[in-house]
Amino acid sequence: MYSVTVRDHMMIAHSLRGEVFGPAQRLHGATYVVDATFRRADLDADGIVVDIGRAAEALRAVVGELSYRNLDDETGFAGTNTTTEALAKFVADRLADCAEAGELGDGARELDGLVVTLRESHIAWASYERAL
Amino acid sequence: MYSVTVRDHMMIAHSLRGEVFGPAQRLHGATYVVDATFRRADLDADGIVVDIGRAAEALRAVVGELSYRNLDDETGFAGTNTTTEALAKFVADRLADCAEAGELGDGARELDGLVVTLRESHIAWASYERAL
Amino acid sequence: MYSVTVRDHMMIAHSLRGEVFGPAQRLHGATYVVDATFRRADLDADGIVVDIGRAAEALRAVVGELSYRNLDDETGFAGTNTTTEALAKFVADRLADCAEAGELGDGARELDGLVVTLRESHIAWASYERAL
Amino acid sequence: MYSVTVRDHMMIAHSLRGEVFGPAQRLHGATYVVDATFRRADLDADGIVVDIGRAAEALRAVVGELSYRNLDDETGFAGTNTTTEALAKFVADRLADCAEAGELGDGARELDGLVVTLRESHIAWASYERAL
Amino acid sequence: MYSVTVRDHMMIAHSLRGEVFGPAQRLHGATYVVDATFRRADLDADGIVVDIGRAAEALRAVVGELSYRNLDDETGFAGTNTTTEALAKFVADRLADCAEAGELGDGARELDGLVVTLRESHIAWASYERAL
Amino acid sequence: MYSVTVRDHMMIAHSLRGEVFGPAQRLHGATYVVDATFRRADLDADGIVVDIGRAAEALRAVVGELSYRNLDDETGFAGTNTTTEALAKFVADRLADCAEAGELGDGARELDGLVVTLRESHIAWASYERAL
Repeated sequence: MYSVTVRDHMMIAHSLRGEVFGPAQRLHGATYVVDATFRRADLDADGIVVDIGRAAEALRAVVGELSYRNLDDETGFAGTNTTTEALAKFVADRLADCAEAGELGDGARELDGLVVTLRESHIAWASYERAL
Repeated sequence: MYSVTVRDHMMIAHSLRGEVFGPAQRLHGATYVVDATFRRADLDADGIVVDIGRAAEALRAVVGELSYRNLDDETGFAGTNTTTEALAKFVADRLADCAEAGELGDGARELDGLVVTLRESHIAWASYERAL
Repeated sequence: MYSVTVRDHMMIAHSLRGEVFGPAQRLHGATYVVDATFRRADLDADGIVVDIGRAAEALRAVVGELSYRNLDDETGFAGTNTTTEALAKFVADRLADCAEAGELGDGARELDGLVVTLRESHIAWASYERAL
Repeated sequence: MYSVTVRDHMMIAHSLRGEVFGPAQRLHGATYVVDATFRRADLDADGIVVDIGRAAEALRAVVGELSYRNLDDETGFAGTNTTTEALAKFVADRLADCAEAGELGDGARELDGLVVTLRESHIAWASYERAL
Repeated sequence: MYSVTVRDHMMIAHSLRGEVFGPAQRLHGATYVVDATFRRADLDADGIVVDIGRAAEALRAVVGELSYRNLDDETGFAGTNTTTEALAKFVADRLADCAEAGELGDGARELDGLVVTLRESHIAWASYERAL
Repeated sequence: MYSVTVRDHMMIAHSLRGEVFGPAQRLHGATYVVDATFRRADLDADGIVVDIGRAAEALRAVVGELSYRNLDDETGFAGTNTTTEALAKFVADRLADCAEAGELGDGARELDGLVVTLRESHIAWASYERAL
């Protein structure tokens, strides 16, 4: 199994609902350094998992939708606790949509899976992994 | 599959038994930067894998048992070669005990697995992965 | 010249005023990984620059004042653009106050200077350096 | 499941064939920071996955074959697009050969798998994973 | 004294002239992760050292001139040994030109100095520091 | 001003004397990731600060003297508290001796200074800087 990973980041504000979050129930923010990993059993005719330029552009577009925003005000997240875990799934699902829509190139339809990791500090991160 | 990782560290002395260890058969030491990854198929009602505050406290407690000690003198390790691999399993098994005892919260009983990685330098690390 | 550095972090929301900030004029947020460096020409009688435990506690207290807050609502920052540069100075000045108040131990009165670095992502950071 | 990872690096020149590579079709180069991960279900009698000294030597030998070379001129790569993905497989397959030839020690014959990751920058890397 | 740093990278081929370089006299290549640090005694009216967006664009333009090239064929480097040290100076001098030409904004004319660091691997890097 | 840095590491046991060290008064250990920075105003005729191969060998020799040892038993450290700060000075002074003895090459006699940084964990490090 092969994989290729590209890294980007986003800076957002939000608050979390639930006593478990303690002081993070207040409005605060985070930088998420986002690693998107594309997996594939075999390489394409060019010898790659995915066009890394397109993969980086797709990731940039997805994090760009969220960057410099207060997620509490985004209607797309209404009713969602925007935990690191949930945001990792959001980014992964958007990238999966890109792959299926052919935005990562025709070869990307052969991708087997995706992992998205959001690093929120030097001591904590979360991932979401899914098939394609 | 989701995961959440927290990082802490411990500084210990020990010696290793066996010719394969060469100069590391002498009493020496290590800083282990410890990453504990908790895995779960679905998020709980709060939208998380595990209460990250409790997970960090549990990890701190486990590494605190070993920190600033000479493992050669710890009766709990009598007869064990305290290799990086063995210590990764030790930390993972203690965290598994915490999860099963409910110390990570009720939701943590839904965890599917754990991975513990001990980084001993910028060029070497070891992991142990287990189900829960 | 000797130095010792300790690392902690804080997660805040804020907005920046001025066209130069583009989309960062909107309410958003950041994780700042904060490195506080203490400098001193000679070591004390214990062979250290500063009691690293006290230094880490002082840094934790300073970042704790800001953590999980919307800096736009903090009266202490009224009229201040809370840029990474300005926050680096804020943290450095608070640590300087701690050193002068003896909270880092008597020896810390011999410190020559401080540097505080705030890393806001994997591709951008800012520092402020001052004498003591 | 246990794993042990060792890190080394190599600096090479090459060009890539195919429109998808854009400016990387020109002769250019890369530093690859190479992480080789050895996996095994159980530890050996010494409490290790593999003799880490031998594993590091084997990795050094493999990257040494490629280091400070123009891969476009290496007959071993004739007809191969030396993408990061393809090079990760090359390194993994050579390490698999070492393990099977007993160069990592007798115990290494019990290894279950290998992962090789090549980091080409702070924002991109590729991996290849195989069984042993 | 304040500073702001932005990071980018470039991937180049080259060879080095001189016995001291051993195997690096052969045509090979490198990824340089490039950190450009801008220093200034006081912040501008917006509370910043430099417009970080413009600084990042300037750095991208400078590394873009070199990226995916064989420096042995670049007439601008004829007669120059393109060591990591020399390339750090090249990048710093180009950024100084940008600052002086007003490409980093009017405020950037108040910058006091620049440091450019080129990381060529996880175990080696070089810097060049100059006044402005 | 130019600089070049090489990285290596050492794993040692020791105990620290003085109440300020709390639990670190017990025998424990550390991995120190050691960065040695060589500074010079101008490059030599080859376009370098120092022969990086010789610099790396010199650093390896210095950390090799300490590696896999209990510093409490080393007569060279009798009467010395082997704090991170003190060990940074020890390494820097040994490298200075190497430079003066010509072991880094003739050009290294032109070096202006040295900085040695010892990273003891992901959250703490110490440096010592000296002229040559």
